[in-house]
Amino acid sequence: MKIVLSLGLAVASLMASNLVNQATEAGLKPIPASKPELMKIINDPKNSITDKKIELGKKLYFDPRLSKSGLISCNTCHNLSEGGDDGVSAAIGHKWAMNPHHLNSPTVYNAVFFDAQFWDGRAKDLEEQAQGPIQAHPEMAATQEHVEQTVTSMPEYVAEFKAAYGKDVKINFVKITDTIGLFERTLVTPSVYDDFLNGKKNAMTPAQKEGLKTFIDKGCVTCHTGISLGQSMNAFNVTATYKFQDVGDFKGDANGMVKVPTLRNITQTAPYFHNGQVWSLKEAIVEMGRIQLGAEITDKEASSIEEFLKALDGRKPALSLPILPASTATTPKPDMN
Amino acid sequence: MKIVLSLGLAVASLMASNLVNQATEAGLKPIPASKPELMKIINDPKNSITDKKIELGKKLYFDPRLSKSGLISCNTCHNLSEGGDDGVSAAIGHKWAMNPHHLNSPTVYNAVFFDAQFWDGRAKDLEEQAQGPIQAHPEMAATQEHVEQTVTSMPEYVAEFKAAYGKDVKINFVKITDTIGLFERTLVTPSVYDDFLNGKKNAMTPAQKEGLKTFIDKGCVTCHTGISLGQSMNAFNVTATYKFQDVGDFKGDANGMVKVPTLRNITQTAPYFHNGQVWSLKEAIVEMGRIQLGAEITDKEASSIEEFLKALDGRKPALSLPILPASTATTPKPDMN
Repeated sequence: MKIVLSLGLAVASLMASNLVNQATEAGLKPIPASKPELMKIINDPKNSITDKKIELGKKLYFDPRLSKSGLISCNTCHNLSEGGDDGVSAAIGHKWAMNPHHLNSPTVYNAVFFDAQFWDGRAKDLEEQAQGPIQAHPEMAATQEHVEQTVTSMPEYVAEFKAAYGKDVKINFVKITDTIGLFERTLVTPSVYDDFLNGKKNAMTPAQKEGLKTFIDKGCVTCHTGISLGQSMNAFNVTATYKFQDVGDFKGDANGMVKVPTLRNITQTAPYFHNGQVWSLKEAIVEMGRIQLGAEITDKEASSIEEFLKALDGRKPALSLPILPASTATTPKPDMN
Repeated sequence: MKIVLSLGLAVASLMASNLVNQATEAGLKPIPASKPELMKIINDPKNSITDKKIELGKKLYFDPRLSKSGLISCNTCHNLSEGGDDGVSAAIGHKWAMNPHHLNSPTVYNAVFFDAQFWDGRAKDLEEQAQGPIQAHPEMAATQEHVEQTVTSMPEYVAEFKAAYGKDVKINFVKITDTIGLFERTLVTPSVYDDFLNGKKNAMTPAQKEGLKTFIDKGCVTCHTGISLGQSMNAFNVTATYKFQDVGDFKGDANGMVKVPTLRNITQTAPYFHNGQVWSLKEAIVEMGRIQLGAEITDKEASSIEEFLKALDGRKPALSLPILPASTATTPKPDMN
């Protein structure tokens, strides 16, 4: 009995090791368990992460006064209480305008692991990305001057910038968005999947391990790879065969390439696909197999993959609700038009 | 020298005691320093406050899925990162609709100290108030069924309701809004003003003490009284002499009475007045003197009162950002129309 049990454990352990090897060979990588290793990946040496910059960036991320209306913050569409997104098909912004291309807001959690941002990959990093929605008319609709004047009108913000960057800091639009991007770099959510790849053999359930194997075997890893379980840019068969090809006019970048979204926390970020037309994760799995892999994914396989994807629900950073500085007489007034 | 100094301190101390007496006689009351005393005031014996109910109420307060669009939560208009309000003249809600009466969103901080809610005092408590904006079409625009189905579609919410209220809890609209109201009861912000009234003689600066004296002497306490430094209902000379009487059609309740808003955290809750037309606190002070007291408040007096009002900037409860349960297949889908 004892021998059988030991043998069973040894086989299970061997199988787990094999699965880790298989995942690694397929290009999957965990969020490093060691903080210095993680910092090497998420830190930008040109603007290194410090606690003061994170706290300031968090305030700016949550501050709706950066928008023209005074009502929309980064957190409105990339809600950190939800999956780091907004849970609607296409982003809704200033004056209730829908994203003109009917694009779904991607999650900000783990976005640091991409080397391109936006669905068409036009921004190279989170700092550059942060400049977009603030100025986009159907989103926060602000000018750079509005943002700069808003922030510099509040002595507390000015003091925090000085404390974070030194007394000679120039508080301009780029510095403000850089600080928001820096905060976003810290929004990583390791899960039992990472624990498993990092050596904790029983961190994932047997069903989740089986699902990971199916995920690899069916070829999902071709696009959903690396730490992000996404990929910067890949051809997306959007125009030819996608069931909801008529919703929105997005055709990818100049080469028809589309950013492959992360699968981390995917159970929390419905609806799916660039135009947010698919609400069921299982349906998304099957559709992706059909469109991208030209493969039939059976109901059983889809369930198995879905089981694995649940292992990607991460541990979110514990954040305190920021308390924002009070507006002053020189803070630009909200404008609803 | 020593004697003069001691005498000076004794005089200062005596003056401080006199000012506390004067404030008390004028009807001003501090937020109690003792937690049991505070609980006696904020607790509703019919639904007593517990940590589990607070945490659940906080999640519901921050959950935009209670709204029809899935984008507007209680925190949108009563933003706890700001002054517990939205910083705009009139509330903006579903489909970017403005409050039809051009009413300004009051702060939720310290709202527990009122015995009527809404500008016309039509709700008796926070629990009843919470039912309003969720269903109002220009606000969250949800039906009771939408709210109930949303909450009960998520097993984590169901489990938390059972943990908070017992396994036989009926999770209906009233129970949900009661839980939100209960969370709001805990949003109190004691300040140096309370410390002063509670016996810490040097908690307020000399200028703030002087301002408090001016505040009492000029008669501001007639309406701004009690713990809230507000009052449930009072006649407001809105139609006759208010400078911005034409903005919005609000005329008070059936008797022309208007709720007197709290002055706590007033430096953070511009714009002022029921229709949010006054952005400068000093202007608001002078206008109020003219409209309500028929008194001229000089520039010097207004500055002095403003100095006192700064002492009402409170210490906000430290809140962790809630992490909301993920939607499920049965969670109602967002509807932008």
